[in-house]
Amino acid sequence: MADLLVLGTGLIGTSLGLALRGVRDVMLTDPDPDALRVAVGRGAGRAWRQGEPAGLVVACVPLPAVPAALLAASQVLPRAVLTHVGSAQVHALAEAGRAGVDLSRLCGGHPMAGREQSGPGAGAADLFAGRPWFLCPGPTTSPEALDAVRALALDVGAEPVLTTPAAHDRTVALVSHLPQVVSSALAARLLAGAQTDAERAGPGLVDTTRLAASPPALWHDVLAANAAEVVPLLRALAEDLRAVADDLASPGELAATDDLLRRGNAGRARVPVKRGRHDRDLVAVLVELPDRPAQLAAVLVAAGEAGVNVEDLRLDHVPGRPQGTLELLVAQDGRAPLLTALRQRGLVADGA
Amino acid sequence: MADLLVLGTGLIGTSLGLALRGVRDVMLTDPDPDALRVAVGRGAGRAWRQGEPAGLVVACVPLPAVPAALLAASQVLPRAVLTHVGSAQVHALAEAGRAGVDLSRLCGGHPMAGREQSGPGAGAADLFAGRPWFLCPGPTTSPEALDAVRALALDVGAEPVLTTPAAHDRTVALVSHLPQVVSSALAARLLAGAQTDAERAGPGLVDTTRLAASPPALWHDVLAANAAEVVPLLRALAEDLRAVADDLASPGELAATDDLLRRGNAGRARVPVKRGRHDRDLVAVLVELPDRPAQLAAVLVAAGEAGVNVEDLRLDHVPGRPQGTLELLVAQDGRAPLLTALRQRGLVADGA
Repeated sequence: MADLLVLGTGLIGTSLGLALRGVRDVMLTDPDPDALRVAVGRGAGRAWRQGEPAGLVVACVPLPAVPAALLAASQVLPRAVLTHVGSAQVHALAEAGRAGVDLSRLCGGHPMAGREQSGPGAGAADLFAGRPWFLCPGPTTSPEALDAVRALALDVGAEPVLTTPAAHDRTVALVSHLPQVVSSALAARLLAGAQTDAERAGPGLVDTTRLAASPPALWHDVLAANAAEVVPLLRALAEDLRAVADDLASPGELAATDDLLRRGNAGRARVPVKRGRHDRDLVAVLVELPDRPAQLAAVLVAAGEAGVNVEDLRLDHVPGRPQGTLELLVAQDGRAPLLTALRQRGLVADGA
Repeated sequence: MADLLVLGTGLIGTSLGLALRGVRDVMLTDPDPDALRVAVGRGAGRAWRQGEPAGLVVACVPLPAVPAALLAASQVLPRAVLTHVGSAQVHALAEAGRAGVDLSRLCGGHPMAGREQSGPGAGAADLFAGRPWFLCPGPTTSPEALDAVRALALDVGAEPVLTTPAAHDRTVALVSHLPQVVSSALAARLLAGAQTDAERAGPGLVDTTRLAASPPALWHDVLAANAAEVVPLLRALAEDLRAVADDLASPGELAATDDLLRRGNAGRARVPVKRGRHDRDLVAVLVELPDRPAQLAAVLVAAGEAGVNVEDLRLDHVPGRPQGTLELLVAQDGRAPLLTALRQRGLVADGA
């Protein structure tokens, strides 16, 4: 059981400890004794006694704190491999070097996992399951360091993706940092409307603004550290929106608007909705659902008994009444047996 | 059983018919005989015989076709109340007047319901359940016309919201039209990245780009018709993004970035996640879930037996492996009993 020292018991550090329960001897430390106590209390590991040896040190601290945290740990544990989980790899590598960290022992990593909530209470054992975990060795990273971080990713059930710090930063700017800023900007616009405006929205607004609940301090650091990649994407997106505004403001065929909507379709088709399947391979079955867990369970029991695999599900919100619509996504050939099974049980269902 | 004529058997027209099964005598017509056949076959109503009387005519056709459709129907049925379900009320009212429709008989309406899919196959009986249905009488709309549209909204389980065409258009520009364009723009940006970029994304990208799958032709019409309200919002959002880009591109405190992230938090807090409850009142419980419906059902059976109401749920996608994370949102006091019930059944759960 290789021993692991986790610096910082926030969402990611605590989740790491929980995911490694029974697999690794996990030691935890945090400058905030309350956060450490919560993480230990939840079974994420045991408190590290300063100087206690560890083979791998994982810095799960805010990005600006990574270099100093790694330097301090590397001095106390002169043979440990070092990694961090920050979402700006070029910046973290450069700053670690500047701080005097031995870069042969450092292999940056980044799990594509997170939640809007933060802190040890939000940690979850399965946060990393099936998620990509970028491995971002620098030019002088030793093979042993890379291997140790890959093993960590595998031990928590993630999918290691070997890349470079620069390629990583480009990818996450596009698929994570840009959506965050856009979601925040969209939610911020609501403040200019009436309070009731947001309450009368459909599920589209709920989905597009979910990321806007994320912690500002964390995103301040991420955006600052990956500004070089994020800035051109923000400018390009702003330009796309301005072009549509100009297009809509002038008489004509709305060529720019149509183009954006069509490119949006094409871009969305690249987003895997489940296990590599894309939207178009699945069909939806809608079930009218009184808002009781027993009813929800009955639907899924019916699906199970009919041998139909539910690829994805979404419970739509019905403001103001005890009722909801459950959307089940199933393979084409699962639709008919599912509808039959539901109707036999008196459940009101419609398949698209 | 008041009789109702639905013009257009797409998503909305078919859903109306399905929602009114057993409540109203629904007659359907569509220029596309295939669409009509599918809608009738699904039980949305019976085919209208030209000239057959109806008390209420609902135009569920693309926005540009609304005035002509209403005019033609009003001439055949000179006493029927007229409505439509378009999401640009000022434009539709003005165009109907220009086309010669008797505006005293017309009361525009707009259900805040929809899906990315379209056509009669996507229609669902519960599409409108609990959703706002805007009632947008014009200055000369008769009380009888308003009452007839309100009754329709109530009969399909929607929540009537009385407003004006102008106020309606402002609201939907903010909570529906703007999110659509932004989601399309975000998804369109993915085309500039590598194919693998989108595949390595987390759930944030999946949620923020869902609307981008919507039909471009429908949105062309909506955006064109409500351009006056949408354009200033697009410009303001583009300006917000440009300000963040400028802020990130220059050395400093990132005041504009921090401000946007904080305003995003405040705006998101206005979005009801379920039945008027907001994010902050609910806690999440994450359950590690092998990808079998029986397992999903077991979780919900456990919740039901523990007497815990699941307010919302989300199944996260685990690309490449037969496994998933189920996020259940429950009231604060439901967390402990739910965790206990899940653990007693050997289900791996963590509560935030």
